Amino acid sequence: MPNLIFRYQVESEPDQIAARADALLLEQTVELSRAVTRDPWVRENILGEVLSIEEVGAGLYAVALAQPLRATALDPAQFLNVAFGNSSLQADVTLVSIEPPDAFFATFKGPRFGVEGLRAKLGAPKRALTFTALKPMGLSPEAAASLAYDFAVAGLDIVKDDHGLADHEFCPFEKRVELCQRAVGKANAETGGTTLYAPNLIGGPETLYRQLEFARAAGVGALLISPMLVGPAFLHELAAAETGLPILAHPAFGGALRVAPDALFGQVFKWFGADAVIYPHLGGRFSYSRETCLSLAKRLRSAEGGLRPAFPAPAGGIKTSRVREVLEFYGADTLLLVGGSLLETGDVVGSARAFVAEAEKISRELVG
Amino acid sequence: MPNLIFRYQVESEPDQIAARADALLLEQTVELSRAVTRDPWVRENILGEVLSIEEVGAGLYAVALAQPLRATALDPAQFLNVAFGNSSLQADVTLVSIEPPDAFFATFKGPRFGVEGLRAKLGAPKRALTFTALKPMGLSPEAAASLAYDFAVAGLDIVKDDHGLADHEFCPFEKRVELCQRAVGKANAETGGTTLYAPNLIGGPETLYRQLEFARAAGVGALLISPMLVGPAFLHELAAAETGLPILAHPAFGGALRVAPDALFGQVFKWFGADAVIYPHLGGRFSYSRETCLSLAKRLRSAEGGLRPAFPAPAGGIKTSRVREVLEFYGADTLLLVGGSLLETGDVVGSARAFVAEAEKISRELVG
Repeated sequence: MPNLIFRYQVESEPDQIAARADALLLEQTVELSRAVTRDPWVRENILGEVLSIEEVGAGLYAVALAQPLRATALDPAQFLNVAFGNSSLQADVTLVSIEPPDAFFATFKGPRFGVEGLRAKLGAPKRALTFTALKPMGLSPEAAASLAYDFAVAGLDIVKDDHGLADHEFCPFEKRVELCQRAVGKANAETGGTTLYAPNLIGGPETLYRQLEFARAAGVGALLISPMLVGPAFLHELAAAETGLPILAHPAFGGALRVAPDALFGQVFKWFGADAVIYPHLGGRFSYSRETCLSLAKRLRSAEGGLRPAFPAPAGGIKTSRVREVLEFYGADTLLLVGGSLLETGDVVGSARAFVAEAEKISRELVG
Repeated sequence: MPNLIFRYQVESEPDQIAARADALLLEQTVELSRAVTRDPWVRENILGEVLSIEEVGAGLYAVALAQPLRATALDPAQFLNVAFGNSSLQADVTLVSIEPPDAFFATFKGPRFGVEGLRAKLGAPKRALTFTALKPMGLSPEAAASLAYDFAVAGLDIVKDDHGLADHEFCPFEKRVELCQRAVGKANAETGGTTLYAPNLIGGPETLYRQLEFARAAGVGALLISPMLVGPAFLHELAAAETGLPILAHPAFGGALRVAPDALFGQVFKWFGADAVIYPHLGGRFSYSRETCLSLAKRLRSAEGGLRPAFPAPAGGIKTSRVREVLEFYGADTLLLVGGSLLETGDVVGSARAFVAEAEKISRELVG
């Protein structure tokens, strides 16, 4: 069976790095020393290999490990375990990137819709897509639905729950989803638009499946989940299920991991099936670098493993005045989020229309 | 409704910290500026409060926030969202600790067994408990069962799957669980012992529930999960379900979070229902400090919120020769893991018996 390649950055004394790299290799699978790993089948079929060790700074090394794909059991949770399970507990190591073999993608099929499928659903073959969030937490279902209606009338492509909207007593999931979907449907009927409403599924597995069932029956157009809050393996399961719905992935609770953001959000979330991945764009309230943002977008859109490209969804304090800058940075294969700033003036429809128009205008300049 | 208190460590310029603390407060709930948060009900009922800002070092501040419990929807995933959702993406902030109000514990009931329940199940009212793991990955179900038999004959309290044992083609979950449980049952029948076998549940929600059902039917005595791999909210759901089985929580994939280990493992995992939490003890392959280890153990054993105490399960390269040191450090309310080193000599039963005997001997010295 083929190997996965995992690349780590490791702090070490020069005379320790060879042993450290070997210990890292063993930690992720057998969790035993080489001497105690006696079984010949295990030595032959489970033990991976240290591919390379390269000094990249003073006391800092790039370590590449090959681990057998079979160690992952082709299960999403176990795959993360082999990538960064126990070693995540060791302060001297960061997971930088992952290179799976082709066979990996026979199980991890990535986005079901991706860029092309979402564009087709929205009748938008070329331009940047737009979306926003229903907020603030504390809205009643009626107020959320009214806001959703305004956004849909203004022509946004997707209106999603804020990722902090859960099954609150003051805004129960079912009531909110029912009213918001109805409001968006009404707006679409009036304008001939195709706005999708994406409720936020959040909770333990039983809650998630109950919410999913309700949302599908209500006719929602897409789904939002935060994989690190609801379990990254749920994303894979949800994408593999034939729900017929595009999935937006939110990065909440994931930013603190000692995993490179482009590996977690740009690779793993996509491999597990997100059609669009939301992440903090540079220059907002968050701190990703230019390089990280570009790498994230590139990974999401890549055809690696024959997977469908997914939309990068840069977010985090972007206002309509920054749409040009953001689209010139990312190009038009972008699902563009403007959130709270649409609520600033009080004229929600006007602000949302201006956002939609600006995204269209810049898209035309970029892709005709 | 009462408030939760969240304590963070924040890096900031002195003249920025007041604004930074307020931004942190807003980020976790409304995700809007104060000016745009106009709804009076939201301002009154959702907006929290910056309780205190204290300089704890040059450019380093301890910030305490009060957030309304209602913002969490009393849902485990949403609770983590309010604690460290978006703010986890900001590099200047670490979540240090969480202080829930009493009302929180009406929903988050913590361990179903805890120290007392697990001691009762094992007929061990005072001494330190012992456990070990079936490894290495790559064992056949028959080899795993043979090892489980040896460990049970030697009198270990719990024999768990290594956390990296998944539903591998070379060691399928069902076959392994069936054979291991049968082997442990046979050993118990022969020795009059009470060893529990704890299989590792790993995968997406559907896989987890299928595995749970199989494991229960097979008669296993406990369960192992890695909450950060299978979704922390699943832990809460599993503990709330009446499975009748103690739950061991493994820290895999959780160590890299910018959340204080004693908050994540010592508090959250316990609140969500783990009866024992495995974590790296100082001086092994991992790097937790003495203070972290003591704080973790103290939190797990506390009666905070009226919850049952849970077992600290220090682990990570502990050998039988270190049992005295570890038990003198933690005392006898400890579930003690010795793992791979039991396999070193080839005489598994002998090594495991020596571990069990040592734990009993030191326990007697400590608690009679």
